[in-house]
Amino acid sequence: MKLFNDLADFSVEEIDDLLTLARRLDEHPEPQALAGRVLALLFLNPSLRTMSSFQAAMIRLGGSAFVISPEMSIHGLETRPGIVMDGAAAEHIREAVPVIASYGDAIGIRAFAQRQRLEDDLADSEFQTFRSLIDKPMINMESAINHPCQALADWKTMDELGVPRQGGKFVLSWAYHPKALPLAVPSAVVHMACQRGMDVTVLRPEGFELPTPIMDKARAAAEANGGSLQESADRHEAIEGAHVVYAKEWSSTRHYGDRLGDEKLRRELVDWCIDDPWFQPAREDCRLMHCLPVRRGVAVSDRVLDGPRSVVIQEARNRMVAQMAVVYRMLRGS
Amino acid sequence: MKLFNDLADFSVEEIDDLLTLARRLDEHPEPQALAGRVLALLFLNPSLRTMSSFQAAMIRLGGSAFVISPEMSIHGLETRPGIVMDGAAAEHIREAVPVIASYGDAIGIRAFAQRQRLEDDLADSEFQTFRSLIDKPMINMESAINHPCQALADWKTMDELGVPRQGGKFVLSWAYHPKALPLAVPSAVVHMACQRGMDVTVLRPEGFELPTPIMDKARAAAEANGGSLQESADRHEAIEGAHVVYAKEWSSTRHYGDRLGDEKLRRELVDWCIDDPWFQPAREDCRLMHCLPVRRGVAVSDRVLDGPRSVVIQEARNRMVAQMAVVYRMLRGS
Amino acid sequence: MKLFNDLADFSVEEIDDLLTLARRLDEHPEPQALAGRVLALLFLNPSLRTMSSFQAAMIRLGGSAFVISPEMSIHGLETRPGIVMDGAAAEHIREAVPVIASYGDAIGIRAFAQRQRLEDDLADSEFQTFRSLIDKPMINMESAINHPCQALADWKTMDELGVPRQGGKFVLSWAYHPKALPLAVPSAVVHMACQRGMDVTVLRPEGFELPTPIMDKARAAAEANGGSLQESADRHEAIEGAHVVYAKEWSSTRHYGDRLGDEKLRRELVDWCIDDPWFQPAREDCRLMHCLPVRRGVAVSDRVLDGPRSVVIQEARNRMVAQMAVVYRMLRGS
Repeated sequence: MKLFNDLADFSVEEIDDLLTLARRLDEHPEPQALAGRVLALLFLNPSLRTMSSFQAAMIRLGGSAFVISPEMSIHGLETRPGIVMDGAAAEHIREAVPVIASYGDAIGIRAFAQRQRLEDDLADSEFQTFRSLIDKPMINMESAINHPCQALADWKTMDELGVPRQGGKFVLSWAYHPKALPLAVPSAVVHMACQRGMDVTVLRPEGFELPTPIMDKARAAAEANGGSLQESADRHEAIEGAHVVYAKEWSSTRHYGDRLGDEKLRRELVDWCIDDPWFQPAREDCRLMHCLPVRRGVAVSDRVLDGPRSVVIQEARNRMVAQMAVVYRMLRGS
Repeated sequence: MKLFNDLADFSVEEIDDLLTLARRLDEHPEPQALAGRVLALLFLNPSLRTMSSFQAAMIRLGGSAFVISPEMSIHGLETRPGIVMDGAAAEHIREAVPVIASYGDAIGIRAFAQRQRLEDDLADSEFQTFRSLIDKPMINMESAINHPCQALADWKTMDELGVPRQGGKFVLSWAYHPKALPLAVPSAVVHMACQRGMDVTVLRPEGFELPTPIMDKARAAAEANGGSLQESADRHEAIEGAHVVYAKEWSSTRHYGDRLGDEKLRRELVDWCIDDPWFQPAREDCRLMHCLPVRRGVAVSDRVLDGPRSVVIQEARNRMVAQMAVVYRMLRGS
Repeated sequence: MKLFNDLADFSVEEIDDLLTLARRLDEHPEPQALAGRVLALLFLNPSLRTMSSFQAAMIRLGGSAFVISPEMSIHGLETRPGIVMDGAAAEHIREAVPVIASYGDAIGIRAFAQRQRLEDDLADSEFQTFRSLIDKPMINMESAINHPCQALADWKTMDELGVPRQGGKFVLSWAYHPKALPLAVPSAVVHMACQRGMDVTVLRPEGFELPTPIMDKARAAAEANGGSLQESADRHEAIEGAHVVYAKEWSSTRHYGDRLGDEKLRRELVDWCIDDPWFQPAREDCRLMHCLPVRRGVAVSDRVLDGPRSVVIQEARNRMVAQMAVVYRMLRGS
């Protein structure tokens, strides 16, 4: 495996293989498997789970990771191509990325969406630039439009919970947040649920539709795997009979890159805080999933997060376990 | 060992056992003992020794640690319960703490006193909250009212120096500092010296008495182990015949949580900078201990810190050695 | 090896030995060689390559490193001797350095030039102070006047490229930068090229001459090893027939420590951005070297950095490989 960028690059059988490996490594530790092996981690944006879980994954396999992030004592990093660097930034990513990669056996990179032009973010053009700069195995640790580690962990979590693939009902629900957040997680997660063969509904207010290319790609995965995809602005209808409500905050796509337009729309939507009554039409054992971090009392209520539906800690732990399989496959092969 | 929170939870025999293990691991390295094992370290406050020494301890035993601290590129952490998170903090410790713990085989947490209500800090209520959130072995890396790693390292340092247990005279002396510092180290250290069976004096200006519950608990330890505990504001009387002067800065307990009241009292006490003449009534071989960091020329003079009495570097190194024993016992058992 | 501070402390044979070891460890990994061994890394200034490459070097050999840097959540560090610490800094390097060293089997320290008095920086007085505080193997990770890890990596890079030692023509060229940068890299590199027996020219505008003690030391190395050293302000003459142009930005030595004087001189020199035409008098296969970070379009043009002459990524990777040899020799002996 030279690239872990998108679950869509893998067949369901390959994903099942990865998760079987993940389970094996979790239950039967191999503390020498990656002895002397190095994972380089470059964060251009904040992280808690990803930074911790990749370090822990490498250590458990006998290797280790090092972290570079902008808040560290490094020289400011410039990302714009062709610019005359007479400002604050002292180093360009055209040097920084290949240098950091040269110290690792593989490299993980996080770079959030620029949220200026939707087509650039949909094309994941910054991640593609990084990819072009290096010739090492590379992991997407959240790019403009993808977050395959989250999607893989969530797949595993639903397997553990016995959430059915065919016939399982998965609701990706927009949730309120004071800021316009990226599309990476909703894009990755809607595809993952479709690829898993589930009946998927994207529940979102008007103006927050997921972009057509994202929906089309997910729908194709649904069709190929016996599932379905629809969208709705009606909570009751969407959640009826759901096995899973996956809460996620994202920016308005109608006003993409337009902060004021987004804010104006968003301001009216503070009641999209997922709370107990939302689950009334769902299955009794319906689960609440969220990738974290989550704003309590804003996106999801305290009583839901502290109640029996929430599996957010299990999802987060599965980040580490799923990533153990990814780095193992990447650095050792099968 | 599921919890390392307070030396008072251990008998003198258990502490001696731990220190025997520490010595063994220091003299006879076991670089595979904790292969593949992960220590999660969460710092809600600054650290130099603790952050370094726990990482070094894990590496020496073949495992490793990862660090999360607020100055890193993470999402801001909210600690207040039940709050509507519409401000700057994007993640609540109710998620962050169990998530970080889920990546480790054990977790260490540092969270200084809030210094608002003395009874909350004496109850160590924030640390107890963290404890309630996780089900992994847990290490107190300094809480509102305790610092067991420092106490264990100091016990070891006195053993190495041949400072007697029964009959040894230990003076915990207040020292000047421009800010009101927490009670964690003085509370841990006064109990440790009492538990060691020493004759202990707390030397402090009026208004800086240690809280009654701290003194009562330490006195009980002294009585159980053949030592004694008293307090004094008289330097000469307190230090007469001392084997050890342990310098420490702490806040006024008379004005606890009242910054201006504390400052007014403190301002008059700049002569509480421990200097050579202080040691005149002490034993000739009397040692100066301090947990570090220490403000030179403010809490302790340069000539004392650079002179033969000072054992502060030895204490700091013993942090690593003592902690090797703690993590070894926690992650491997006996 | 107890100290890695200056390539000048080693004979050419010893350097060749180190580089043979570096090559061996790169080609034939020894992932248990430094099991359980700890490298302490203290950065008083920013770093990307050094911080990453030392961590990676240790991991590849089965040990690990920990990092302390000022931007981390530590107490502010005071470096001035004898000061009354009643300001912001809560810890003095007289404690911090020996404490950090006590957790490692070796320690690396980075502390840039103060750039106040040239004679202090030439004497590397701050690094000598650090050295006096500790009794552990110690690595200079860039001091006021030296950067031996960079010099060793560059030596290796030229060996790999087949750049001749005797008869090889090496041009150290000043390049524009908006700020006055330290002399550590030019000082280390000019000596390295001379010690390698090359014919070395320092190309720099008036006012940016390297200090006489630096030139004298390098010239002695040239004479001892069959090379030569000259300086020039004439680009064409200097670069004629060059095998290597090594670009580096540094402060005016005529106005050392005088920011305004330096700026006035520097402002006129924006055309010292190394670009394709500069190489016209050079050998056709002439290489562009730079220690990084480099400001694109300011110190070196995009087309040179992206073109076939540039070997800057290879140099950066060799930092890790060369440092593997240094820590191996330091911690295991031969």
